Amino acid sequence: MSRVYRLLMACPDQVGIVAKVASFLAQYNGTIVEANHHADPYTGWFFMRNEILADTLPFDLQTLKTVFGPIAKDLQMTWRISDSASPKRTLLMASKESHCLADILNRWHSQDLDANLVGVASNHQDLQGLVEWHGIPFYHLPVDPKDKAPHFAAVESLVSELEVDTVVLARYMQILPENLCKLLPGRIINIHHSFLPSFVGAKPYHQAHERGVKLIGATCHYVTQELDAGPIIDQDVIRVSHRDAIEDMVRLGKDVERVVLARGLRWHLEDRVVVHGNKTVVFN
Amino acid sequence: MSRVYRLLMACPDQVGIVAKVASFLAQYNGTIVEANHHADPYTGWFFMRNEILADTLPFDLQTLKTVFGPIAKDLQMTWRISDSASPKRTLLMASKESHCLADILNRWHSQDLDANLVGVASNHQDLQGLVEWHGIPFYHLPVDPKDKAPHFAAVESLVSELEVDTVVLARYMQILPENLCKLLPGRIINIHHSFLPSFVGAKPYHQAHERGVKLIGATCHYVTQELDAGPIIDQDVIRVSHRDAIEDMVRLGKDVERVVLARGLRWHLEDRVVVHGNKTVVFN
Amino acid sequence: MSRVYRLLMACPDQVGIVAKVASFLAQYNGTIVEANHHADPYTGWFFMRNEILADTLPFDLQTLKTVFGPIAKDLQMTWRISDSASPKRTLLMASKESHCLADILNRWHSQDLDANLVGVASNHQDLQGLVEWHGIPFYHLPVDPKDKAPHFAAVESLVSELEVDTVVLARYMQILPENLCKLLPGRIINIHHSFLPSFVGAKPYHQAHERGVKLIGATCHYVTQELDAGPIIDQDVIRVSHRDAIEDMVRLGKDVERVVLARGLRWHLEDRVVVHGNKTVVFN
Amino acid sequence: MSRVYRLLMACPDQVGIVAKVASFLAQYNGTIVEANHHADPYTGWFFMRNEILADTLPFDLQTLKTVFGPIAKDLQMTWRISDSASPKRTLLMASKESHCLADILNRWHSQDLDANLVGVASNHQDLQGLVEWHGIPFYHLPVDPKDKAPHFAAVESLVSELEVDTVVLARYMQILPENLCKLLPGRIINIHHSFLPSFVGAKPYHQAHERGVKLIGATCHYVTQELDAGPIIDQDVIRVSHRDAIEDMVRLGKDVERVVLARGLRWHLEDRVVVHGNKTVVFN
Repeated sequence: MSRVYRLLMACPDQVGIVAKVASFLAQYNGTIVEANHHADPYTGWFFMRNEILADTLPFDLQTLKTVFGPIAKDLQMTWRISDSASPKRTLLMASKESHCLADILNRWHSQDLDANLVGVASNHQDLQGLVEWHGIPFYHLPVDPKDKAPHFAAVESLVSELEVDTVVLARYMQILPENLCKLLPGRIINIHHSFLPSFVGAKPYHQAHERGVKLIGATCHYVTQELDAGPIIDQDVIRVSHRDAIEDMVRLGKDVERVVLARGLRWHLEDRVVVHGNKTVVFN
Repeated sequence: MSRVYRLLMACPDQVGIVAKVASFLAQYNGTIVEANHHADPYTGWFFMRNEILADTLPFDLQTLKTVFGPIAKDLQMTWRISDSASPKRTLLMASKESHCLADILNRWHSQDLDANLVGVASNHQDLQGLVEWHGIPFYHLPVDPKDKAPHFAAVESLVSELEVDTVVLARYMQILPENLCKLLPGRIINIHHSFLPSFVGAKPYHQAHERGVKLIGATCHYVTQELDAGPIIDQDVIRVSHRDAIEDMVRLGKDVERVVLARGLRWHLEDRVVVHGNKTVVFN
Repeated sequence: MSRVYRLLMACPDQVGIVAKVASFLAQYNGTIVEANHHADPYTGWFFMRNEILADTLPFDLQTLKTVFGPIAKDLQMTWRISDSASPKRTLLMASKESHCLADILNRWHSQDLDANLVGVASNHQDLQGLVEWHGIPFYHLPVDPKDKAPHFAAVESLVSELEVDTVVLARYMQILPENLCKLLPGRIINIHHSFLPSFVGAKPYHQAHERGVKLIGATCHYVTQELDAGPIIDQDVIRVSHRDAIEDMVRLGKDVERVVLARGLRWHLEDRVVVHGNKTVVFN
Repeated sequence: MSRVYRLLMACPDQVGIVAKVASFLAQYNGTIVEANHHADPYTGWFFMRNEILADTLPFDLQTLKTVFGPIAKDLQMTWRISDSASPKRTLLMASKESHCLADILNRWHSQDLDANLVGVASNHQDLQGLVEWHGIPFYHLPVDPKDKAPHFAAVESLVSELEVDTVVLARYMQILPENLCKLLPGRIINIHHSFLPSFVGAKPYHQAHERGVKLIGATCHYVTQELDAGPIIDQDVIRVSHRDAIEDMVRLGKDVERVVLARGLRWHLEDRVVVHGNKTVVFN
């Protein structure tokens, strides 16, 4: 994989945005290896993502940002540029269930997930050995059901100490308090085990079984203060039938949870996701 | 297709049900061409469907029912036997949108749907020509938005007059009144253009667009008095993205509506669906 | 739907292509409503599609082509511009089976398919009434199995006479001769009832049944002189099992054939497909 | 999970098979928790699987086999009964790639896969630590590319020594010699990374990329002497596009390989698969 800069931007739509940005890059001989646009007819906003071969530009990331600044300002952009050589510092959080965590660790180990895994935090120690076999630090942060505040304070300290960019809730079974949600807006990713907005909250497979649906699903979304209501990154489903008991749904659902979380996380790590309002633009 | 009897039954589970029914059929030399069972661990009920080659039994349908009666009574069964030689008398109801109706008509015309289509009723005349080209009677039953009662009375008369067994709401845009729902319990099939229980009611694609889901769906279900809450027969989904405007969702959703309704209807017509509580057992 | 120009181009990749084209459009105040790029690392080619709001440009299609010409020449482009106000003159060809034809007609009738249907040609008369109900001319061109040449000559005349741009083989069961394939390269679309390259040629569902596959599929592709080997536009599959006899596969496969053909045709009609070598770039 | 006996049988079809078997079980008060039948119209064979609650029968597995023997003989059955309390002794074989192996280990660790994993054999040592963390013995059996015979002799010894019932080739990159294939007919499971029968043999993703297919797949099948031609247990696919380079296909394909192998293996372990000729009946 060649080193690339990923330029992600959002601004009110107008004629000439692509021309300005593309001309800027062409002027410095920057090779665009991937480009995606989206003009949203409902909001009048324009979104763009460019991947540029880093070596084709005559300056470093900091200079690129400085030089691009005036164009971005002129177009009233919200924007960011990331460097594939600096993968996001990512903290995984899990509880006892291993399927999502083991899957992410294996993808990372197989070099299929471009994250800098700075640690795994869990309120249980069940998965410590697996995590450590992968060479990732494990942090045991117990939860006292009667007073969860110390736990969340520990999480916040860890996020700060490890300079965490992205948090992944890989079947971490606690609801984050408001202040944690606000700390990393658009950078905490959760996997919910239903096809949202159906079956918000606890025990979604029980709810699905009760309703008699013929497909169950999983939803990868950014965490906001409202439970299971944040911007959706990806979803998928799997077929079930009257033969499937709740425990079958739990088992079948794991396959969907794994792939949906892995897909959503990958897109996030590659800066393919723009949050706008409560929705996402995903340039995949 | 050989002529078959379809024996569908539900009863409290106990040891020996299959043995009794299978022995009964074997005693008369009846050849079972398809058999399905389901023992539900939650309710303690047992469900079974047998397809028997009609010509291998030494008696007609009426006699079969008579002879089977005592066994059914002994096992406290709810049961029915249908004859593939007497396809269900089916009334299709539609409004202006043609995609589901045209699809069902084509399947019927191609001999892929084993229904006796006794008519199509609609509150508009747009589809009359298409229906009549297929040789099916068309009934124009207008709706007065200020007083819908006469319309529903006309529907009820038609159902009675045509001796309708099954009604299919093929994107018929009216909500049936309570008395009509009760008239044909488990025999009115609707296609709802969302993945229920998400987006109940009007304009589900608008709701889906608003929420930013990444899959849209359709649900085929039996109509009950509670809107979009009846037993689900089948569901399916299709992928959408930020690029899809509401009108794209409407268009894409049609493909799912068509196949989900056709599949659910087919299973109903072949007596593959048992309603139990607010859920279905589908022996497909 | 607003009127748009669709600019589709392919050229050897180099720095600055997007900048040049986007600047050209911006210079004339053209609003880009959709843009897609693809840089192919294997061949070193670059592909781009722009949809431009026609009313935002100060000139007509012909002038646009003239003004754009020098840029295209400079970049060594293969290119074309089409106008959504002039949908492609399309000839459908079918035999006896109606499912694909009825589906396309219904989509067209529902205004979901932006084609100018100039006619339906068939070697049988079974579907004449259905076609004519839709207001499309029907051409009966019989095939003499002992001498097919007159049939193909009649097809060729019809193509010429109706100034056909695109031919759709909607389960037309004849193999086109070499000269017809050459006449409309990249403009004859076929639906093959298998997941190519598996099961080329006759009776693919029989082949699939014989091999015991667990999914069957359909492939929409451009016709070339080599049977079932042309560039693939789209494919999809449906699950089957040991319970499905060949006739069940035929029936289930129809659902896949319908949607795959409709999808591929839609992309072709909207100029979303570029053929390069024996593969396609599909900007969907 | 309650302990069950799984009775799997195949015999020429005739009237009364279900009656005989069900009556036999009812006579001893055996509770059937799951039953599946299939009458194959092409071969005239009948297949059946019954799951019986072990505790409801008055005798042990050996006596059950003895008592059932005469019925089976009378019906000319090929049959077997397995006991869920004795999961199959399973040997996993892998090479360097970890995705399938890690996935199976995680399912086993999560108690979602009912196998007795007696060991993992590999021609490389890369995965030793992961395997051993799960508490499974690891056997390093190197391959000399110039003389593979000693490797396969070591595999054969290991199979014998560990009393292996089932071998899983979890992306094991060697072609088994004839004698090993014959040793465990219908008990060696392979995952091939294409949608067979397309792209048999080496580098299927390269072949898929070359052909320009729009879906790639994976196939789980029993190994026979003919390469990639054994009875198919399960298959699935994932969508790709012109944007996907070969290495993207390799990455995307892993998700399909994982689930298809896990599904096929699960069905095998639960005695849900009957091989008949070169096809499978899968009672899932």
